[in-house]
Amino acid sequence: MSSGESVALIVQKFGGSSVATAESIKRVAKRIVETRKAGNEVVVAVSAMGDTTDELIDLAHEVTPIPAPRELDMLLTAGERISMALLAMAIKSMGYDARSFTGSQAGMITDAQHGSARIVDVTPGRIQDALTEGAIAIVAGFQGFSRESRDITTLGRGGSDTTAVALAAALGAEVCEIYTDVDGVFTSDPRQVPLARKIDRITSEEMLELAAAGAKVLHIRAVEYARRHNVTLHVRSSFSNKEGTYVLNEAAAAEAAKKDGTVEEPIISGVATDLSEAKITVVGVPDVPGKAAQIFKIVAKANANVDMIVQNVSAAATSLTDISFTLPKSEGQRVLTALTAEHDEVGFQSLQYDDQIGKLALVGAGMRTNSGVSAKLFEALYDAGINIEMISTSEIRISVVTRADTVAEAARVVHTAFGLDGDEKAVVYAGTGR
Amino acid sequence: MSSGESVALIVQKFGGSSVATAESIKRVAKRIVETRKAGNEVVVAVSAMGDTTDELIDLAHEVTPIPAPRELDMLLTAGERISMALLAMAIKSMGYDARSFTGSQAGMITDAQHGSARIVDVTPGRIQDALTEGAIAIVAGFQGFSRESRDITTLGRGGSDTTAVALAAALGAEVCEIYTDVDGVFTSDPRQVPLARKIDRITSEEMLELAAAGAKVLHIRAVEYARRHNVTLHVRSSFSNKEGTYVLNEAAAAEAAKKDGTVEEPIISGVATDLSEAKITVVGVPDVPGKAAQIFKIVAKANANVDMIVQNVSAAATSLTDISFTLPKSEGQRVLTALTAEHDEVGFQSLQYDDQIGKLALVGAGMRTNSGVSAKLFEALYDAGINIEMISTSEIRISVVTRADTVAEAARVVHTAFGLDGDEKAVVYAGTGR
Repeated sequence: MSSGESVALIVQKFGGSSVATAESIKRVAKRIVETRKAGNEVVVAVSAMGDTTDELIDLAHEVTPIPAPRELDMLLTAGERISMALLAMAIKSMGYDARSFTGSQAGMITDAQHGSARIVDVTPGRIQDALTEGAIAIVAGFQGFSRESRDITTLGRGGSDTTAVALAAALGAEVCEIYTDVDGVFTSDPRQVPLARKIDRITSEEMLELAAAGAKVLHIRAVEYARRHNVTLHVRSSFSNKEGTYVLNEAAAAEAAKKDGTVEEPIISGVATDLSEAKITVVGVPDVPGKAAQIFKIVAKANANVDMIVQNVSAAATSLTDISFTLPKSEGQRVLTALTAEHDEVGFQSLQYDDQIGKLALVGAGMRTNSGVSAKLFEALYDAGINIEMISTSEIRISVVTRADTVAEAARVVHTAFGLDGDEKAVVYAGTGR
Repeated sequence: MSSGESVALIVQKFGGSSVATAESIKRVAKRIVETRKAGNEVVVAVSAMGDTTDELIDLAHEVTPIPAPRELDMLLTAGERISMALLAMAIKSMGYDARSFTGSQAGMITDAQHGSARIVDVTPGRIQDALTEGAIAIVAGFQGFSRESRDITTLGRGGSDTTAVALAAALGAEVCEIYTDVDGVFTSDPRQVPLARKIDRITSEEMLELAAAGAKVLHIRAVEYARRHNVTLHVRSSFSNKEGTYVLNEAAAAEAAKKDGTVEEPIISGVATDLSEAKITVVGVPDVPGKAAQIFKIVAKANANVDMIVQNVSAAATSLTDISFTLPKSEGQRVLTALTAEHDEVGFQSLQYDDQIGKLALVGAGMRTNSGVSAKLFEALYDAGINIEMISTSEIRISVVTRADTVAEAARVVHTAFGLDGDEKAVVYAGTGR
């Protein structure tokens, strides 16, 4: 698709590990030039080189423990400024015109929320001018500009994916290619499930569920943006010319399947696992209306991102119940402190904290029309002797919590049970591409 | 002057060595806050940290031998973005409001000449707003914005001094303080002339001559800008609170001298030396009209910065003459090549190249009204057995060329002869402050 016959506008995004050194910048430049040579117009969103962003954050913390958000954004945006200028130079030295643009110059208009700004408008006039004049436009990922405060903003971690998608939407690009160091989106993490297969096509709904369940290849926010604006994503490797994974809206996916003669879509798209969460159990909560609301108001005030919630059936004799929920480990201490502070108000007996859990999620649009998926999942886990501690479901996802040390085995048996195994072992690259 | 009683606007400039580490940034922040605490409004121009600019240039050269100028400017401006954001953070963490501004945000409007842009306008509306709201404004030195091309530009090496002076002029600052790691401008380089004294006041004309003659403490362009716009410069140490050197226009200098009762100004302000030049002699040039013009047209086409020119009296017998001139060593090869290419056209006999020369310049406004200065200079050098190879004069300067290895001794004897020696040895710091 990247080397098509007709003139198309293609947006390409390269992450920090793809532009970590002068050598890799030259490699990426060559790749971009190939796409241009094939007759396409090209817009590139690029992240800061390698660990630049982390290094700048460290530097800020050497100066002050709590950097002023406006100034932190000013600081961090130096990162993409460096990578985009070098990339544009590299392309120009190959005889192709290229121009770099800051978020502000590219028209990435955001609100004034430093560190996690939301895009409110995209006005890519200068990008269009550059394309019209035959140039390749290189845009700083991750950054924007607030009209309100007239200040530089950043979109938050992984914001370069969002930059790429927003540009693709605003410019009406044929496709937004997200380059990474794996071949695409896999049915499961190949490091855990050796027979994992690359997925050729996936709907954005499924991709969202996979990303939310721990698949790290794409950022949720970028997938959401792509879904809302009907942008076709193509997740592919910067190390090969192989087609990767297309992330499409449902209509486009159905259309493509019809063309292929693969209308009978697989029930399950993928199996994701996540070891980054912990479980908090509030033990002995009085089983009266409003208690759950009270607890989760405290949790929300502690700025925690709760994932799964389970409330036990209360024991008739005591009228007490237990409420368990999962959340990122990094937020555990904060929430425990907040709950302990309100102990008397809520009136629970005790708190349990468990950071040895693993989460497994089964995702697939085909689940909607296929009953028996959960039964099959539970059976596969039972056969492997793996105990399920929590269950939660959405329309196209089933998640279960197990012990952390059984989750890899769980992923393998579920992968096999749902017929996802490929014929050969997947190639695993060193990095994660992000 | 920095801690005055009345509210004044003070512009302060800190170079790269003053902000090389997180620690030194905190030290500079403290210094700025002290000036603010004393009741002044403060605007700061800051360079990139330590060797950042050189490192970015190296990176560019790893990508391509000839970086595109627009992209090189985009790249380099990341440097001040980092230092200014860190400095603003550091100040904010001390409880004072501070905001960083890029050259573009600060209204440093330049032409579109990447790498050596000239300032065409300064529109510091945002700086004024920040001051009105009680904030300290931190401005990226060295950078500007072209209205014409809508692109980021840089002012060339040492441009941060110019940024500071331009802001001081546009904002009507009381003084523009240039912080360095020496105590001010000295009558000679203390590393060469141990009895060199700090100059309390100097006219901008004298400062220009000293800078042109090799004194590195201030950039010529910044001094010129200050003179044209009547900005008072104060060159001082960032390591002490001592007054440094005021660079004033003639009227202000005379005014200050009257106040002090030091109206009888010294004849000589300082002695500068320079080892960065080489001498080219065009031997055996036909002594006919237009030959010198022909030669220097060739030299100019090679983009050389010629300093001194001497033409020998032609030998009557041959009607041939020699023309010598000095220029930066770095330009020597280029000019030799250019002249050699035009050998037949010009009709000279040979070229001599000598990079073992040293230049000594004696600068002083008092020279205008005092005869005998050159005689005294030549006598002092003669007494020390130092041979003079070339001489050139301006209204307030006499320069001579000697062998490179005698120039330090020459500076010492001339310094003594003109009564410039101080009572004690000057303190010499490690770096150069630039």
